Amino acid sequence: MSLNKAFTIFGGTGDLTFRKLMPAQYNMTAANAEEAQSRIIIIGRRDYTTEQYCELVRDWVKKFARLPYEEKTFEVFAKRISYFKMDISDLNEYARLSEYYTAENIDDHVFYLAVAPKFFGVIASGLKAVKEASLGKVILEKPFGEDLESAKELNKQLETFFPAENIYRIDHYLGKEMVRNIQTIRFTNPIFANLWNSQYIESVQISAFEDLGIGTRGGYYDTSGALKDMVQNHLFQILSIVAMEWPEQFSTTAMHDAQLRVLRALRPVEDVRDSLVLGQYKGYRQEKSVPTDSTTETYAALRLFIDNERWWNTPFYIRTGKKLRCREMQIAIVFRQTFISAPRNILIIKIQPNEGVHLQFNVKTPGDTDEITQAKMDFSQSSSISSRINTPEAYERLITACIKGERSWFSQWDQIETSWDFVEHLKDLYRWDKLPVFTYEQGSDGPAEADNLLKRFGDEWVF
Amino acid sequence: MSLNKAFTIFGGTGDLTFRKLMPAQYNMTAANAEEAQSRIIIIGRRDYTTEQYCELVRDWVKKFARLPYEEKTFEVFAKRISYFKMDISDLNEYARLSEYYTAENIDDHVFYLAVAPKFFGVIASGLKAVKEASLGKVILEKPFGEDLESAKELNKQLETFFPAENIYRIDHYLGKEMVRNIQTIRFTNPIFANLWNSQYIESVQISAFEDLGIGTRGGYYDTSGALKDMVQNHLFQILSIVAMEWPEQFSTTAMHDAQLRVLRALRPVEDVRDSLVLGQYKGYRQEKSVPTDSTTETYAALRLFIDNERWWNTPFYIRTGKKLRCREMQIAIVFRQTFISAPRNILIIKIQPNEGVHLQFNVKTPGDTDEITQAKMDFSQSSSISSRINTPEAYERLITACIKGERSWFSQWDQIETSWDFVEHLKDLYRWDKLPVFTYEQGSDGPAEADNLLKRFGDEWVF
Repeated sequence: MSLNKAFTIFGGTGDLTFRKLMPAQYNMTAANAEEAQSRIIIIGRRDYTTEQYCELVRDWVKKFARLPYEEKTFEVFAKRISYFKMDISDLNEYARLSEYYTAENIDDHVFYLAVAPKFFGVIASGLKAVKEASLGKVILEKPFGEDLESAKELNKQLETFFPAENIYRIDHYLGKEMVRNIQTIRFTNPIFANLWNSQYIESVQISAFEDLGIGTRGGYYDTSGALKDMVQNHLFQILSIVAMEWPEQFSTTAMHDAQLRVLRALRPVEDVRDSLVLGQYKGYRQEKSVPTDSTTETYAALRLFIDNERWWNTPFYIRTGKKLRCREMQIAIVFRQTFISAPRNILIIKIQPNEGVHLQFNVKTPGDTDEITQAKMDFSQSSSISSRINTPEAYERLITACIKGERSWFSQWDQIETSWDFVEHLKDLYRWDKLPVFTYEQGSDGPAEADNLLKRFGDEWVF
Repeated sequence: MSLNKAFTIFGGTGDLTFRKLMPAQYNMTAANAEEAQSRIIIIGRRDYTTEQYCELVRDWVKKFARLPYEEKTFEVFAKRISYFKMDISDLNEYARLSEYYTAENIDDHVFYLAVAPKFFGVIASGLKAVKEASLGKVILEKPFGEDLESAKELNKQLETFFPAENIYRIDHYLGKEMVRNIQTIRFTNPIFANLWNSQYIESVQISAFEDLGIGTRGGYYDTSGALKDMVQNHLFQILSIVAMEWPEQFSTTAMHDAQLRVLRALRPVEDVRDSLVLGQYKGYRQEKSVPTDSTTETYAALRLFIDNERWWNTPFYIRTGKKLRCREMQIAIVFRQTFISAPRNILIIKIQPNEGVHLQFNVKTPGDTDEITQAKMDFSQSSSISSRINTPEAYERLITACIKGERSWFSQWDQIETSWDFVEHLKDLYRWDKLPVFTYEQGSDGPAEADNLLKRFGDEWVF
């Protein structure tokens, strides 16, 4: 154990900590990971001793850890943990925290903000009292603000204390196996790399279908909606990986920059009718904690263009929604057909729940005929740890990546700002045009208007 | 039954007729095919009545026909058959044959020459006596001569009687499902069509491995060898389909012409050491009917170039041999890698015994790594009738195609002449350079020199 290192969790008695972070840290301890050498400082308002807290954790670990519970391992793990009671909203408390770190000889920090975003500011302010804290790293989860303005404010608060490169904003989708695979598929395969542009690609379609509704998250979801909850962050991240130029090198910084340039090249929308369709599933207004006159969208379909040499003539179709016919997330690259009359070639990258690469192409119909049949080639990846995006296993990887300084798992501020700006503006245009949020049947493909959006331009969803 | 039409078989008591042609005609009768409406005139030297001949055929049909033997069907089939005894080498006999056709009111002909090539000339001469015969079609099997000279002579004899477009030279490989599929795969899939040239393709490799030896065919094989038996006809046909330009239209004539242009563009060989390796398996000289000092090659590997804009910089590697490690025929399209260090993309078209399309490409190794793993996508075609190239079923298709005038199943004379010219010249150079026919182990990949041929130019066999 490196006694001078600490992994401090703000919100140490919250759900995220018990269900994900502590089981993850237990796994890392059991695996004897180098990144599990630090102490774990739990900050909570409740009145626990470290021993009491560890007893609580023991039950959660038994229930949620990937690796089997073992008494001996847990004792090693428990020795890492110290419970520190404080009220994080009270700025005066941080001097005490500082004294504690000094007394314990802790001077190497990772802070995990497992609290609501409204506390980010006060924590950043409070930590000024802690020696060496500003040299440490900080991990946050979305939502990074509630809109562009609040996101900017939040970011300012954090960046005045932590250097930008030490702020780790988790985007779970960036850790997904097949999302990480996009760059390998694109760049290491000349059969795809040589065709990866407007001349050969007719459209790119990114679909994130969910079959479930909003469950008990009505309160949060209704203030957010599909655009903020899925499009602005996850789907724009994926779009920017699919569309980016070759980075100068395959470093995280160069990749991030290449992604950012895509988002900055998104063509400003002129006619919002040609760019956005919003939908709400029937029955949404009867969900728990949802206002009965809510106009929050549970579905969004976008038609976007990227104004650069590579993509000027290729629409990017993006859609996501709840209570749709299935749960599936996939990217479809639709290649232009030549003058030959035959079905299109389509490369499909399946992200979740199944992972794999599929290629639709044409062969001769077997037998004494020259007719064309569509064939499908599959490469299915056995579902791996990373496919379960919100599990202790995923958190093991995220915590490890942060400690190692691997930023490719995290989204950077200027990406967030750019995509938020674009999406908010698009949504404003939609409202100004007084376009309706179309209702759609549960278990459907979403509102028919999303199909019509593509039809008007001679395209169709391939999934 | 069209009483004025006849399908006449010269060599009516030979093995080919009993095993393949008659079972095929029976199947066609059973399937009530339009092309089975003609009469069948069997010409043989033996002293059979039609009834006796039909009794013989009955046993062969029971044994070899695809469709189950049925008494009623066989009676219908037998009614089509007439046995005509004559000595085909006696020119005087043809007047009698002519009288027979006239008496039977037959004036619409297809002739199947199921006899040794040495009889082709006399049959063509004899048929001058038969009214309307020169308007008919004639079907031949390989070998079309024993060398360029004899092939030319043979062709002259046939063409002075039959118009070139009515001569149907069977190349069984042209009827194979996956050979016929090449053009569909190439031309209807933009992901392949757009990359089908020297800029993107590093090499084309056509391999035809046989695991068996020459069996009891030693007498024939030793006068032929791998170059004449496989390369000059089948492999050059496949090469020309893989490499041809887009035909002006997908007609047989345009396709044939496009293939011919490929063969004519084969780069003349300068250093034969860089172009050809011949091999002979150990034990070949002990095979039945093989001279103990035979230098006939049972293996050949070629490195060829096509001098046109599309292919000038792409080697075509061709190899075939007997007693190799397996039985497999496949085409591999090896794509150039970009500046990225990663395994190459390879498109494999499997021709026999398995049929299918395979694509080797790169993905990320699953898990917390950016390493590259080679993945394989498969499209396997269920083995169809056409995969068994020398069966009554294949003959059903060939006979049907000939009657319908579908020439794409057959090779045309100028292709044969061009490829024969190229291969003979290459072999002569090899002999003049006094290069050895290398021995190789049975069950191997052939002589090591064939591997070295590619290695010297920075390539390797991918199969």
